Amino acid sequence: MKVYLFGSYLSSLSYIASKYIPRFINSHRTFSCTSVLYDKWGTKKKHRNIPLNIYLDTMADPKIEEILAPLRSHVKEQGDFVRKLKDDGAPDLDVKQAVAELKHRKRILEEKELSLAPNLITFDRAKMEDLLKRRFFYDQSFAIYGGITGQFDFGPMGCAFKANLLHNWRQFFVLEEQMLEVDCSILTPEPVLKASGHVERFADLMTKDVTTGECFRLDHLIKAHLEKLSADKKTTNDVKAECQDIIIKLDGMNKDEMHSVMKKFNMKSPLTGNDLTEPIEFNLMFATQIGPSGLIKGFLRPETAQGIFVNFKRLLEFNQGRLPFAAAQIGNSFRNEISPRSGLIRVREFTMAEIEHFCDPKDKRHSKFDNVKDIELLLYSACNQMDGKPAEKRTIGEAVAKGLVANETLGYFMARIQQFLIRCGVDPPRLRFRQHMSNEMAHYAQDCWDAECLTSYGWVECVGCADRSAYDLTQHTKATGIRLAAEKKLSEPKIVDVLEVVPNKSVFGKTFRKDAALVTEKLTVLDKTEIANLENEIKTHGSYNLHAGDQKFVLTNEMVTIKRYQKTEYVEEIIPSVIEPSFGIGRIMYAIFEHNFKVRDNDDQRTYLSLPSNVAPLKCSVLPLSSNAEFQPFVKKLSAELTKVDVSHKVDDSSGSIGRRYARTDEIAIPYGVTIDFDTLKEPHSATLRERDTMEQVRIPLTELPNIVHDLSFNKILWSDVLQKYPKFEQQETKT
Amino acid sequence: MKVYLFGSYLSSLSYIASKYIPRFINSHRTFSCTSVLYDKWGTKKKHRNIPLNIYLDTMADPKIEEILAPLRSHVKEQGDFVRKLKDDGAPDLDVKQAVAELKHRKRILEEKELSLAPNLITFDRAKMEDLLKRRFFYDQSFAIYGGITGQFDFGPMGCAFKANLLHNWRQFFVLEEQMLEVDCSILTPEPVLKASGHVERFADLMTKDVTTGECFRLDHLIKAHLEKLSADKKTTNDVKAECQDIIIKLDGMNKDEMHSVMKKFNMKSPLTGNDLTEPIEFNLMFATQIGPSGLIKGFLRPETAQGIFVNFKRLLEFNQGRLPFAAAQIGNSFRNEISPRSGLIRVREFTMAEIEHFCDPKDKRHSKFDNVKDIELLLYSACNQMDGKPAEKRTIGEAVAKGLVANETLGYFMARIQQFLIRCGVDPPRLRFRQHMSNEMAHYAQDCWDAECLTSYGWVECVGCADRSAYDLTQHTKATGIRLAAEKKLSEPKIVDVLEVVPNKSVFGKTFRKDAALVTEKLTVLDKTEIANLENEIKTHGSYNLHAGDQKFVLTNEMVTIKRYQKTEYVEEIIPSVIEPSFGIGRIMYAIFEHNFKVRDNDDQRTYLSLPSNVAPLKCSVLPLSSNAEFQPFVKKLSAELTKVDVSHKVDDSSGSIGRRYARTDEIAIPYGVTIDFDTLKEPHSATLRERDTMEQVRIPLTELPNIVHDLSFNKILWSDVLQKYPKFEQQETKT
Repeated sequence: MKVYLFGSYLSSLSYIASKYIPRFINSHRTFSCTSVLYDKWGTKKKHRNIPLNIYLDTMADPKIEEILAPLRSHVKEQGDFVRKLKDDGAPDLDVKQAVAELKHRKRILEEKELSLAPNLITFDRAKMEDLLKRRFFYDQSFAIYGGITGQFDFGPMGCAFKANLLHNWRQFFVLEEQMLEVDCSILTPEPVLKASGHVERFADLMTKDVTTGECFRLDHLIKAHLEKLSADKKTTNDVKAECQDIIIKLDGMNKDEMHSVMKKFNMKSPLTGNDLTEPIEFNLMFATQIGPSGLIKGFLRPETAQGIFVNFKRLLEFNQGRLPFAAAQIGNSFRNEISPRSGLIRVREFTMAEIEHFCDPKDKRHSKFDNVKDIELLLYSACNQMDGKPAEKRTIGEAVAKGLVANETLGYFMARIQQFLIRCGVDPPRLRFRQHMSNEMAHYAQDCWDAECLTSYGWVECVGCADRSAYDLTQHTKATGIRLAAEKKLSEPKIVDVLEVVPNKSVFGKTFRKDAALVTEKLTVLDKTEIANLENEIKTHGSYNLHAGDQKFVLTNEMVTIKRYQKTEYVEEIIPSVIEPSFGIGRIMYAIFEHNFKVRDNDDQRTYLSLPSNVAPLKCSVLPLSSNAEFQPFVKKLSAELTKVDVSHKVDDSSGSIGRRYARTDEIAIPYGVTIDFDTLKEPHSATLRERDTMEQVRIPLTELPNIVHDLSFNKILWSDVLQKYPKFEQQETKT
Repeated sequence: MKVYLFGSYLSSLSYIASKYIPRFINSHRTFSCTSVLYDKWGTKKKHRNIPLNIYLDTMADPKIEEILAPLRSHVKEQGDFVRKLKDDGAPDLDVKQAVAELKHRKRILEEKELSLAPNLITFDRAKMEDLLKRRFFYDQSFAIYGGITGQFDFGPMGCAFKANLLHNWRQFFVLEEQMLEVDCSILTPEPVLKASGHVERFADLMTKDVTTGECFRLDHLIKAHLEKLSADKKTTNDVKAECQDIIIKLDGMNKDEMHSVMKKFNMKSPLTGNDLTEPIEFNLMFATQIGPSGLIKGFLRPETAQGIFVNFKRLLEFNQGRLPFAAAQIGNSFRNEISPRSGLIRVREFTMAEIEHFCDPKDKRHSKFDNVKDIELLLYSACNQMDGKPAEKRTIGEAVAKGLVANETLGYFMARIQQFLIRCGVDPPRLRFRQHMSNEMAHYAQDCWDAECLTSYGWVECVGCADRSAYDLTQHTKATGIRLAAEKKLSEPKIVDVLEVVPNKSVFGKTFRKDAALVTEKLTVLDKTEIANLENEIKTHGSYNLHAGDQKFVLTNEMVTIKRYQKTEYVEEIIPSVIEPSFGIGRIMYAIFEHNFKVRDNDDQRTYLSLPSNVAPLKCSVLPLSSNAEFQPFVKKLSAELTKVDVSHKVDDSSGSIGRRYARTDEIAIPYGVTIDFDTLKEPHSATLRERDTMEQVRIPLTELPNIVHDLSFNKILWSDVLQKYPKFEQQETKT
């Protein structure tokens, strides 16, 4: 049995996985040294200061490569072993265990790589989180009620950043590619998610404290227990080795195997010492009832994609029956994580932006591929992962030509994803595309690449990009009997034999009444073998039992006629393939925060966010130099005019030196700042304009200011253009 | 007991109501004549053709007023009676019943008014719904699985319209007023909604078929039963009169009263004839469990407002402690309606856009009120409703000055709501503001006006605008012990006596350990009486029991010191008032669809939507005259350039005459259409540009086209400007 749905965004995180695939924890490591402090009440307080070695082209330094060489070959050795096992058709369990060991070696290599990275960037996560919380970018939901883990509210700055990011996404993907955007229901009835596989398989294993009911994610619990045991001096070397072995294999273990480990080591609740239950499969979907009867079970959707698939027929029709086309959706999804953590990275409620590109399974070329073919991507192929080699830069054209990336459409989207992420503030050296190894991928997936961003939590999957073949449409077709297919013109017409069941309408109407249409529809989807069987049954037994859903209908001789004839076909029916780029908006936001959190050279208390202006929450600040009443009319007028040209801005007329107020606007990433000063009062009226990152200032006539700020904000002109045209304004920013 | 929360948007719909307030059904009447058809299988199919008399200033015609006069005085008579009962302090039940009768008389008046309206507009809802479904503006969710009532998916055109509407909303309110937009969690833990009153009171009464479990909304069931009985020839006049009396009073009845009616008339399930259960209070929130333990109960939020209230402290701080300020939120809310109906108007999952404007309860002036004071609104005051008078036009300045609208801030938002709705396509004569009568309003609400749009379902509440006083912040303060208050500078400093409990920190730390901070916090919120009580208890019994949540802490003499001193206060603490404009996005969309559904004069099969360009799903179509290959490069180039200037557009190079393709683009409300024809091939290259509503065309150089379409689409220039500048292009649109 293979993992279903793995190609989908975030699915790699918590999705079943435990049984089939190595845990995502690999790329979730935290490079933190946690020091524990006590406050005045004796309460433990955690304080984090995280020096992070950012990976910046480790490849360059031969000395580093020397150190890494044995680790690389260690990985390759195991990679080759996995390949051999597969070639020999070894049992599944052996392959799984070998892959778990491979992952373990990869992890050791990657940690070493990161620790040796030559360009050290010190990143202080606590400092950044303090800024984000203090200026209410986001914070825990319902905090005054004690809060719920895994839920966050976005404050004014976070919300505006998110809205801008989504606006950019819509411009960049939906508008530019003329995608069909939809907005589907969140509450989803059970049958839909049964067909998609989520009801059966979207689960994590957990165990409960039998007395308190406290829940633990099983793999986390076992790992913590064994690590503690290993670290104990009293533990024998044999037991230590066994612990290590189990930890390595944990990712590949199923429910029974994990249960055995629990029993063998007599594991208890780490909090109370109480007994634990047997492993429980916990479905990660939030369940509810739709309607008052309590009979219609529903779930909050765990991904937005299914809404697009169930609307496929309408969308194809909207596109006048033509392939290829892409549909897109932005919306919230929900996953009832057993133990949410890592801030915005693993949450219970999150916004996704998903694209489903439907195309001919035999023709996955993309008409705009030429536009992107020279774009270079940092590709971490499955092969390099097996061989212990690092990620490599390649043009997407080359990668597709060599078959590394499965097809043009997949490659096109990967390049577009990179363009989008960089445009919105992801730091290019901290972005890579990692290919899923064959064991990670769903059986139906052709190829899958994750856009990963390097953060202080390690490499985090932010966008998944998968070729899901015809899986989803096929599943919903099976479940509903409604063919989710498209027609493709044949290169030349074809004569085919037709076998058809023709209902006798009047008898049908009398016999089946309201179900007549249903029975008729059911007959039209029978295939040749089924029709032949029907004919035979009626001939030999006088009747045929037709099943439709839970109902059974008895067909007899006088009700149907079997027709045989030939016809010429000009089109063939195909079930389209789906290429799915799937964006986790919260994770992208988090990565952008980390990549843009900066500290001024001369003052480590003065932090700021260098978000690109197209996604910055506000584009401009308007600051009167002092509370002088004469400044007020200018502030008011400028504010009104900025509004007129759609420039979001903030007037800060609070007291405090101009430098201090600039520092406050830098914290919330405002890229441009206007100061109304005493020279503004003179004719021709003018004001200073300051750029956040360089802190350079120019003096500009007030009449020209709104349009210049607009053009800067939406990347129509560059700051360097402004610098050339207007006189530089030199004045020290005073600090208070 | 009064109705809680009535001021909030949509709350008037299903919110409890049954017990306290007349049903919203008044303004939900359908003016439809339904004819039943049968399809070839004998299946019943409903067909609707709805001639609707649109109300367009009935006031003007004295003949009509003559007919209406007796109905008006009939209403006034009852209105006066209600006033008298209240003045006399009559029992609640009597008042309720009198109000129910008043509502009934109002309904008769309003129906007559509508039927006599002189300007007849024939509106065919079936035709419009066919268009909206066929071109996939929206349709039932999960239709291939049989669908769920009350849930809709927005297709490409509906989704783009919705996104544009929300973008306009954000520009018009958030940006223009510099509101603090937030984006809060949908899943809400129970205590939050207990405090807001939803857990206890957000319910409708229903009854179930004891055998099948089928559910019925109780008031609907009783009304249908009694109406059927009244219509029966065998029913005596006495019984008929009784039925009528009950129907009139139904809105005011509570659970027991309705139950008596059920028993008296021996009501059974109208579908099966089976017995029915006693009335059940059915909470309209969708419940679920948060986290794996099953112990944290949560609900899908029934409104977005609570997310803002629980973040009040963070928002106030973000605004540097100053009042007034407004927060806003766009997001989905959920209500598990017992019987959803009326398309987009009563659904289970819907998008809201809410504003909470926080201000000093003693100063509800608005700094920008002067900008709107001359705007005329059609106001249907509570007084006029009681007196049987029609709605009246008033400037908002006059209405506030006369005290008709409670305060400037409320009035300011009403004017802004009107501006916004009209800008987005609501037809001005079909928009009114209806004031809640005192019986409809929550006890804490100061004033409440609904922006109602006239549709084929009657007057539909689309935006609520209420002064909710300090209710919400007070409730959450009570529930959490965290003071959701602001500080207001005193006009002059004040000397006050202070009574304070000072904890002995070292003893506290030793005694309470991890709870020390909690106990300390709890002490700081005790009021004077409680402190005096604490002092007294410790003095007389040696200890005091402090309760914090479920816990009890025993305080003794050595743990605390009571301090008495005087201090000068410069600020006072106030709990802000909240003015709440609350927009139902789906309802607004529906009203705009109805108000913009048009039929061409010369061809009643040719329907179109005249959506304003700022909200139209796509701004422009690009149509090559024929499949001539020479047109292709021009189409491609123009499409790329329109994308560059952010103009959403659709290329339609399908076969079909140009007239037919225009008709297709008119159906999806595309305001501008460019045709590439043979003259385009000549230099200087040019194309025709067509305006949807007038069908006028001009010829414009290709180089100028993208910017002109951009400026037209975003209302920077008018079509009349274009007509003046460019030569008119005369050619009949051919029809195929």
